[in-house]
Amino acid sequence: MNTATGQPLSPAAGHSPAALHVLDHDDTVAIALRDLPAGKRISTPDGRILVITGDVPQGHKVALADVSVGSVVRKYAHVIGVATAPITAGDHVHSHNLAFSAHEGSSADDAAGEPLGPLELPDRRTFLGIRRSDGSVGTRNFIAVLSSVNCSATVCRTIAARAEASGLLDEFPGLDGVVALTHDQGCGHVAQGQGLAMLRRTLAGYAQHPNIGGVVMIGLGCQMNQMEHLLEGITFRPEVPVVSFTVQEQGGTKRAIARGLEAVREMAPTVTDVTRVEVPVSELVVGLNCGGSDAWSAVTANPALGHASDLIVAQGGRTVLAETPEIYGAEDLLVRRAASPAVARDLLDVIGWWEEYTAADGGGSMDNNPSPGNKAGGITTILEKSLGSVAKGGHAPLMAVHRYAEPISARGFSFMDTPGYDPVSVTGLIAGGCTMVCFTTGRGSAIGTRPAPTLKLSTTSDLFRRMGDDMDLDCGSIVEQGRSIESVGLDIYHRILDVASGTPTKSEELGYGDNEFVPWHVGAVT
Amino acid sequence: MNTATGQPLSPAAGHSPAALHVLDHDDTVAIALRDLPAGKRISTPDGRILVITGDVPQGHKVALADVSVGSVVRKYAHVIGVATAPITAGDHVHSHNLAFSAHEGSSADDAAGEPLGPLELPDRRTFLGIRRSDGSVGTRNFIAVLSSVNCSATVCRTIAARAEASGLLDEFPGLDGVVALTHDQGCGHVAQGQGLAMLRRTLAGYAQHPNIGGVVMIGLGCQMNQMEHLLEGITFRPEVPVVSFTVQEQGGTKRAIARGLEAVREMAPTVTDVTRVEVPVSELVVGLNCGGSDAWSAVTANPALGHASDLIVAQGGRTVLAETPEIYGAEDLLVRRAASPAVARDLLDVIGWWEEYTAADGGGSMDNNPSPGNKAGGITTILEKSLGSVAKGGHAPLMAVHRYAEPISARGFSFMDTPGYDPVSVTGLIAGGCTMVCFTTGRGSAIGTRPAPTLKLSTTSDLFRRMGDDMDLDCGSIVEQGRSIESVGLDIYHRILDVASGTPTKSEELGYGDNEFVPWHVGAVT
Ligand SMILES: [Ca+2]
Ligand SMILES: [Ca+2]
Ligand SMILES: [Ca+2]
Ligand SMILES: [Ca+2]
Ligand SMILES: [Ca+2]
Repeated sequence: MNTATGQPLSPAAGHSPAALHVLDHDDTVAIALRDLPAGKRISTPDGRILVITGDVPQGHKVALADVSVGSVVRKYAHVIGVATAPITAGDHVHSHNLAFSAHEGSSADDAAGEPLGPLELPDRRTFLGIRRSDGSVGTRNFIAVLSSVNCSATVCRTIAARAEASGLLDEFPGLDGVVALTHDQGCGHVAQGQGLAMLRRTLAGYAQHPNIGGVVMIGLGCQMNQMEHLLEGITFRPEVPVVSFTVQEQGGTKRAIARGLEAVREMAPTVTDVTRVEVPVSELVVGLNCGGSDAWSAVTANPALGHASDLIVAQGGRTVLAETPEIYGAEDLLVRRAASPAVARDLLDVIGWWEEYTAADGGGSMDNNPSPGNKAGGITTILEKSLGSVAKGGHAPLMAVHRYAEPISARGFSFMDTPGYDPVSVTGLIAGGCTMVCFTTGRGSAIGTRPAPTLKLSTTSDLFRRMGDDMDLDCGSIVEQGRSIESVGLDIYHRILDVASGTPTKSEELGYGDNEFVPWHVGAVT
Repeated sequence: MNTATGQPLSPAAGHSPAALHVLDHDDTVAIALRDLPAGKRISTPDGRILVITGDVPQGHKVALADVSVGSVVRKYAHVIGVATAPITAGDHVHSHNLAFSAHEGSSADDAAGEPLGPLELPDRRTFLGIRRSDGSVGTRNFIAVLSSVNCSATVCRTIAARAEASGLLDEFPGLDGVVALTHDQGCGHVAQGQGLAMLRRTLAGYAQHPNIGGVVMIGLGCQMNQMEHLLEGITFRPEVPVVSFTVQEQGGTKRAIARGLEAVREMAPTVTDVTRVEVPVSELVVGLNCGGSDAWSAVTANPALGHASDLIVAQGGRTVLAETPEIYGAEDLLVRRAASPAVARDLLDVIGWWEEYTAADGGGSMDNNPSPGNKAGGITTILEKSLGSVAKGGHAPLMAVHRYAEPISARGFSFMDTPGYDPVSVTGLIAGGCTMVCFTTGRGSAIGTRPAPTLKLSTTSDLFRRMGDDMDLDCGSIVEQGRSIESVGLDIYHRILDVASGTPTKSEELGYGDNEFVPWHVGAVT
C-alpha cells in the first residue's frame, strides 16, 4: 500500500487475511499484521514467498529484501536507518540489526511550502462555540483557580474540589467546571535563567484562554513568582472577573480557602452568562499530539488526523503540531513545507537549541526516543517514529514556528516547540490558545485536559476494545476494516466539531485535567 | 546579645521597649525591633545615642557604626557583605548600600568537627514509635499509592481520595491515611541524563519509608520509568504488602481505579496491625528545613531548632540539614564542623556541582537568593541568610553529606544536598528516611507533608497570631518575651516527641501532603 492513496492491504479484503502491511512499493520492510512465528511461509504483495527467519511480533518489521551492513532500510518511502548486521529477506528488523544514522542537515532555502491542493470539503462547516469579546471562540467555559507557586497548590485544589462538590455546576449549567491549575514551580528559579519567564508565559496563556470565563489567582506571598509581575503579563478580556490574593495576606490556609470559595461563588453567575452560537470552522484552534505511539500510529491514526487537519486548514482554521524531539530526524519534511525561508530558519533554530539542551544533560543526545513502549511496539529509530509523527500535520504549508506556550498567532498549520512528553507538550499547546487537542495513541494513553478538552484516537481496534473507557475514536478500522485514511479523517473532523460544540470527551467524563497541567521545567531548581 | 549565650536584649526586660536587637558586640549592624522613622533618636546597648537617617522597617538592619565603601559589614559576628555606598551610623543597611562579596574558598583540611560539649538532657528521652521489621521506627502508618509517571497520576489520586472518603480510616484506626505520591515526571527523561535515576531513588525512598505500611504502585505501561526497573531498586520490608500494575494492562482508567481501590482495601487490615511502643530518641530521624525566611529566622526559630537538634544528636538520634543554595557562602562553618576531611570534601564537591549547575542555566549564579520575600523581610545577602540557615543545625559535628534522596546512613548530625525550594528539599529529606521534618518560617509557609509530618515553627509571635491555623509553635517569644533560645529549643524538642508519637501537626489537620511531594527535576525534559 501507499499511504498517499490510502489503499491498505486489508485482512478484511476478501481473501485469506494478509500477514504483512506494505506501506510503499520501494520499502525494504513491511509490517507484520499478526505475530509471525519462525519458519512461517507468507506471500508478499508482489507475489513472492517469504520465509520468516525468527519470531516477529505483531506490528514489528519484516525484511522484504536483503540489506548489507551499512546500507539503508526504507519504510514509508523514507530512510529510517542503516543495517548494523546483515539483513536477509524474512528477518525480523529491529534494534538488533537497525540503527539511526545521523541525518544530513536541512537548509532554510529548502522552504517550498505549497498551498493545499483541492480538497473535497464536507457540508458541515460550523460548530457551536462561545464567542468572547476579543473575537476568540471558546469550546468550554471554566473558572480557573490558578497557583503562582507550588506552596499555594493545596489551597487552589481544595477550593476547586469543594466548589465542584458544592453543587455549583448544577446551579450554573453554563459553567463547565472549576479547574485547579497547580504546578511544582514558582520559587527557586535561577534569577537569570529561563525557567521563571516560561512559567509566567504558560500561566498567562491559561489565564487569558478563550475557555476561561473567570480567574482566581493565589500565591503564598513570599514566592519568587510574585503576583503583580505575573498579573502584569496577562491580558484579561474586560468581561473576565479576576480575584487574586495570597495565603499570607489572608492569614493562612483556612481563610485563603474560604476567600477563594467565596470568590468562585460570587463570579459564577457572571461567568455562566454565555450562549453557544454557530461559528465557522475558521475559529477552531486544534493541537495535534501523540503519546505511547506504536507501529500503527504512522499507518492509521496519524495520517487520518492529518487529513482532518487539512480539512480545518482549508477553511482557515488553525492546527498546531508540536513535540520537537519526535520530529527530530524528519524535520526536513517540515522545512520543505515551510511557507518561507524565515519559517524554515525558525524551525532549524529550534532543532539546534534542542541538540544543545539535551547534550547539556549528562551528554545526552536527541536519539533518546523511541521510549521502551515504542520499542516494544516495533518502532526502532527516532527517524521511523518521526516520520509517523509528522503525518499528524497533514499536507498544508507550515505558516509559523511558535515557542513553548506562545500565543498561536498564525492561521493555518503551524508548529510549537515543546518536549514530546505528553502532559508538558499539551500544556504548552493549550497555553498557546488551542481550544482542543487531538491525541493519537497506540499503547494507550489516558491523558485528558482542562479547560481545553483532549480527544483520544486509538491507532488499533484492539486498543479501542481494551481501553474503550478512555478512547474516543478508533482509527484501527483503516487496517482492520480496510477503510480509507480520508474516511476515518472525516470521522475525526466531525468528532472535533462535536467536541468543540460541547460534547464531552471520554477523559472529561473520567475527570481528567487537573494533574495534566504540567508547565515545562526548563531551568535549574535552586 | 550573643546568640551563643541566648541572652536577648528584650523589649520585655523591664525598661522602655528596646528599639534595636544587637546580636554580637562586634557587629556593625543591629536589627530594628519595630519600624523606626527617619529622625528618631534611639539609644544603643553600649549607651550611645543614634539618629535614624531614613525610615527603617521592622526586622531590617540599622548601622551601629560608620562603614566606608568596600569595607565589611558584620552581623552575627560574621561578615555578611561589603558596603557599596558610604554607610553612616543610624543608616538603613540593605541592598542599596550592601552586597555579597565573593567569599574565600574553604579547604577540606579545615575539618575539625568536635563532639558536642556537655548538654543538660531533659528527663523525657523516649517517644511512642512504630517499630518495623528492619529495625527502623516509623512515626506514622500510611498506605502509599505511588505513580511511576505523571500519566498515572489521576488514577493514583482518585484511588487515594476515594479510599479515604470511603471511611477506611474510621474502620482501621491504626491506619493514618492513604497518600497519593504523584509527580510530573517519569517519561521524556534524557536516557543518559541524571533525571530518571534521581526520580527512581526518590520513589524508592518513599516506598521503603518507615512510615509506609503498604504500597500500591501504578504506571501507565509505556512510560520510560518502567515498573520492573523501579521495583528492582526498592528494598521492601518483608511485611509490607505491595501491589503493582499499569493502567494499560488493566484496560484503562476505570478498571485501574477499581483495581487500586480493591488493593488498598485488601491490604488495610494487614497494614493497620501495628502498635506504638516506647522507643529511645536515638530512633528519631528529623529533617531541618526552612522557607519564607525573614530577619528573625536567624535570631529566634533557627537557633532554637539548632538546640533541639543538639538534644537529639546527644542521645544518638539523627538530624539532617539540607538546602545547599541556602548555606552557600557560609559553607566554611560546616566544613570546620566536618567530622573528617572526607566529609568536608564531600560538602565542597557538592558546592562545586551547584556552581556549575546554576551557571549552565542562562549564566545564573548562586547569588539568586534571598528571594523577594526575604529581601522585604530585611535580609540583604545570601551570606547573611546562610549564616541564619546553618543555625538550624546546632553545634554537633557533621558526620556525613548525603546526595539528594539517598538513605540517611549516618547517626548524629548530617547534611543532604537539596535545592532550597521547599517542597523539593523536604521531599528529598523524607525520601532519605526522615520520619518528621521541622520547618522554620518567617513570612509564613503553609507546607505540610505525608507520610512524614512537618512541624512548623514561626520566627515571630506576630506571624503565629496571623497564621495560627498553620503554625505549630511560636519561637517569637525569644524576642517578644525575652525567653532564652535553650528554653524555646526545649519546647521544640518536646513537640517533636509528641508529633513523633502520633499527635497531628497543623498541616496534617489541614490535609496537606499530596501536592507537596515534588521530586527534584534535575535533567532535561524531552
Ligand atoms: Ca500540575
Ligand atoms: Ca508525546
Ligand atoms: Ca509521541
Ligand atoms: Ca507532586
Ligand atoms: Ca527552603
